[in-house]
Amino acid sequence: MAEPQQKLFKAQTLKGFRDYMPELMAPRQQMIRRIEATFERHGFQPLQTPALEYLETLAGKYGEEGDKLLYRFQDHGERHVALRYDLTVPLARVVAEHRNEIQLPFRRYQVAPVWRADKPQRGRFREFFQCDADIVGVNSAIADAETLITGLAVLQTLGIDGAVLHLNHRDVLFGLIAAAGVTEKAQQIACVRAIDKLDKLPPVAVVAEIVAGGMDAAVAERVVAQFQDGGVTLDAVAAQLTDQSSLERVRQVLALVTAAGLGERIVFDPTIARGLDYYTGIIYETRLTDPRVKGIGAVMSGGRYDGLIGLFTKESIPAVGISLGLDRLLAALQELELVPKDAHAVQVYVTVFGESEAATAIAVAGDLRHVGMRTELDLAGGKLGKQLERASKRGARLAVLIGPDEAAAGTVVLKDLRDGAQQTVTRANLPAVASVLLQV
Amino acid sequence: MAEPQQKLFKAQTLKGFRDYMPELMAPRQQMIRRIEATFERHGFQPLQTPALEYLETLAGKYGEEGDKLLYRFQDHGERHVALRYDLTVPLARVVAEHRNEIQLPFRRYQVAPVWRADKPQRGRFREFFQCDADIVGVNSAIADAETLITGLAVLQTLGIDGAVLHLNHRDVLFGLIAAAGVTEKAQQIACVRAIDKLDKLPPVAVVAEIVAGGMDAAVAERVVAQFQDGGVTLDAVAAQLTDQSSLERVRQVLALVTAAGLGERIVFDPTIARGLDYYTGIIYETRLTDPRVKGIGAVMSGGRYDGLIGLFTKESIPAVGISLGLDRLLAALQELELVPKDAHAVQVYVTVFGESEAATAIAVAGDLRHVGMRTELDLAGGKLGKQLERASKRGARLAVLIGPDEAAAGTVVLKDLRDGAQQTVTRANLPAVASVLLQV
Repeated sequence: MAEPQQKLFKAQTLKGFRDYMPELMAPRQQMIRRIEATFERHGFQPLQTPALEYLETLAGKYGEEGDKLLYRFQDHGERHVALRYDLTVPLARVVAEHRNEIQLPFRRYQVAPVWRADKPQRGRFREFFQCDADIVGVNSAIADAETLITGLAVLQTLGIDGAVLHLNHRDVLFGLIAAAGVTEKAQQIACVRAIDKLDKLPPVAVVAEIVAGGMDAAVAERVVAQFQDGGVTLDAVAAQLTDQSSLERVRQVLALVTAAGLGERIVFDPTIARGLDYYTGIIYETRLTDPRVKGIGAVMSGGRYDGLIGLFTKESIPAVGISLGLDRLLAALQELELVPKDAHAVQVYVTVFGESEAATAIAVAGDLRHVGMRTELDLAGGKLGKQLERASKRGARLAVLIGPDEAAAGTVVLKDLRDGAQQTVTRANLPAVASVLLQV
Repeated sequence: MAEPQQKLFKAQTLKGFRDYMPELMAPRQQMIRRIEATFERHGFQPLQTPALEYLETLAGKYGEEGDKLLYRFQDHGERHVALRYDLTVPLARVVAEHRNEIQLPFRRYQVAPVWRADKPQRGRFREFFQCDADIVGVNSAIADAETLITGLAVLQTLGIDGAVLHLNHRDVLFGLIAAAGVTEKAQQIACVRAIDKLDKLPPVAVVAEIVAGGMDAAVAERVVAQFQDGGVTLDAVAAQLTDQSSLERVRQVLALVTAAGLGERIVFDPTIARGLDYYTGIIYETRLTDPRVKGIGAVMSGGRYDGLIGLFTKESIPAVGISLGLDRLLAALQELELVPKDAHAVQVYVTVFGESEAATAIAVAGDLRHVGMRTELDLAGGKLGKQLERASKRGARLAVLIGPDEAAAGTVVLKDLRDGAQQTVTRANLPAVASVLLQV
């Protein structure tokens, strides 16, 4: 490697993948920490699962389309493996595998990348991060409400005011389709897929899609009419359903979320369909109402999936969860100007006068770091002006100057980079004086 | 999915992979946060790179052995790709690819999993986490020292007292081998590989290994004698070397680290060899001296690699870095009893008397979470005794009881789970009273 390389390797990220450079990564990480702290405030504990799973664990859990998007290969032991597609199926696997260690109800959160070989487009990547919080082991309205409250609290913590959670129930959705005269399961599922697009396509296009799937036009129109406009009320829907239990669950969840003071953040919306196959109870998506970020799509979604864990163990174990789209959330925060510009910015910049002063400079930097200040030591050298320029570029508010006189006297010059004011302080007093200036 | 599954899927993690359950993950995450904060205090910024890279980016950078351990496959677009093997080569790729956005010197850190299809054994996994901090763009003793100081500060932050950094320089290593009479490059490299084992094998076994590689026994003995016992001094080594510049760099780095008050944490050790091919300057490993954790191996290692970025871009860009082994560090912290037992433990447990009190309970939990308390709401129900048992299992220090009388009166009973003392407080006062009790 000491010899010069003949041919350069091409420096490129894979299509659909990206580097998070510090400007983006610093606020992103701050956001993740706040999300995790909120999960913890709500009693959720961290869990981490491997990036790779047996293909058998993941295959067939995400529908036909999802199956195609799995990154799969054979490992060195010729095992068929796949990269994690979401955090929910691995959680189900964990609960079944570690059943004896886990105390139910089990609340866990996980923040981790998932991989889908999807067609990349603006805002859609092949590697992206999910933040999930789930409650395993209870099927009750209060467990449903707890997950929704946790998710809404995350949005509140991040400063997002205009978020509305659109709540539905899978049985309400299927009940309304059945009430329109569609009784065959496959046809019902085709209707669900079409209904899911009502927020993007005009009703006539959704009708056309159902008809294209081989259904009668009159039936298709009746189906779509069931869901027309978001204002469909609980009472109107109740009149259509033969079994009221799913709607009763929706009412209970709404009441509990309202009791938590979040009544304005949740609405019943029978058009919510959710793509994944594994949902069995409440399903929901959360949309941002601020016109600046309306196009960003659902920032939080999820639902109840009481059958999934049962694919891995004979015991029937219900579960409900939320999933936050980290990158969508960050995009929203940036658009709403809620991202602090100086996340992780350097606070103090220690300049280095020359080689003889390097040891003193490094020791002074150590003193500042020791009291918790984000401190950068100049490494590129050169004239003081150049060093102070770099200090400003790094966002530093204070600079420390140590010439030969100061080094000999045990003092430093502390310069406030906002107004240029400078003062000479002893090394012993520097951390305290700098700390006061940073608080101004 | 509503239909019962005929055959259960087997719930199992892949060999060499593991789930981090909350008991392990909570302290681990706390440790990661403290490491990241230390990196930031030293002026490093977060960067994140994708898990998948072009195979071409990674292949050939880790030596023959490393190449075999790469998880590689063809993606849906038939591109040859591989999972990240370390964080250093991706950093080199990033610097070359984003050269125009990056201000040099560039200090970045990254905490992320890497994958190696290695033979799993106790403490060695195929997926493991690295924490790296690197300084790109400067080749100077002060940059070398800054990375070492940062790494030692991390160990100090974590409470690890007995850590010693063994510092060497690649040219010192090769110089000593050359001085013993081995002049051919391939033979020198074979000697380096053997010398690397001096801390595990007796000298005679190392001599045998060099001889097995086809070298003369007398030369092999001379080579090993150069490195015998760790007490080889700087002066003794200086007498052997024709070029003193590498040793001069070692002296400067030692002086700067000593100036930062860390002189007792660093020693010169010419036997340090490091496996990876890309090092060009200082190289080092950090060992724990406490007898309880001696077997854990190097918890932090790294070195200077001035040629690596040049594989991706014509510009010559020097770099130096540290890499912390997260799982080894956690194992050490556990062994040294430095892991706080109650990381992320629940603080307050809100019991639920019955369905009619659920709304009040959920609202009270919200009040506590709002002021930042880690609060869990009971979801499994049943008798109060059962609920309080679960509260204790979750490590809660306080429990909140709300019966029909309290719900009607706007009060709650606050129970201290340490001594069983309980008091009735108004809902409005609860957060303040609970906060005082938690601080006792």
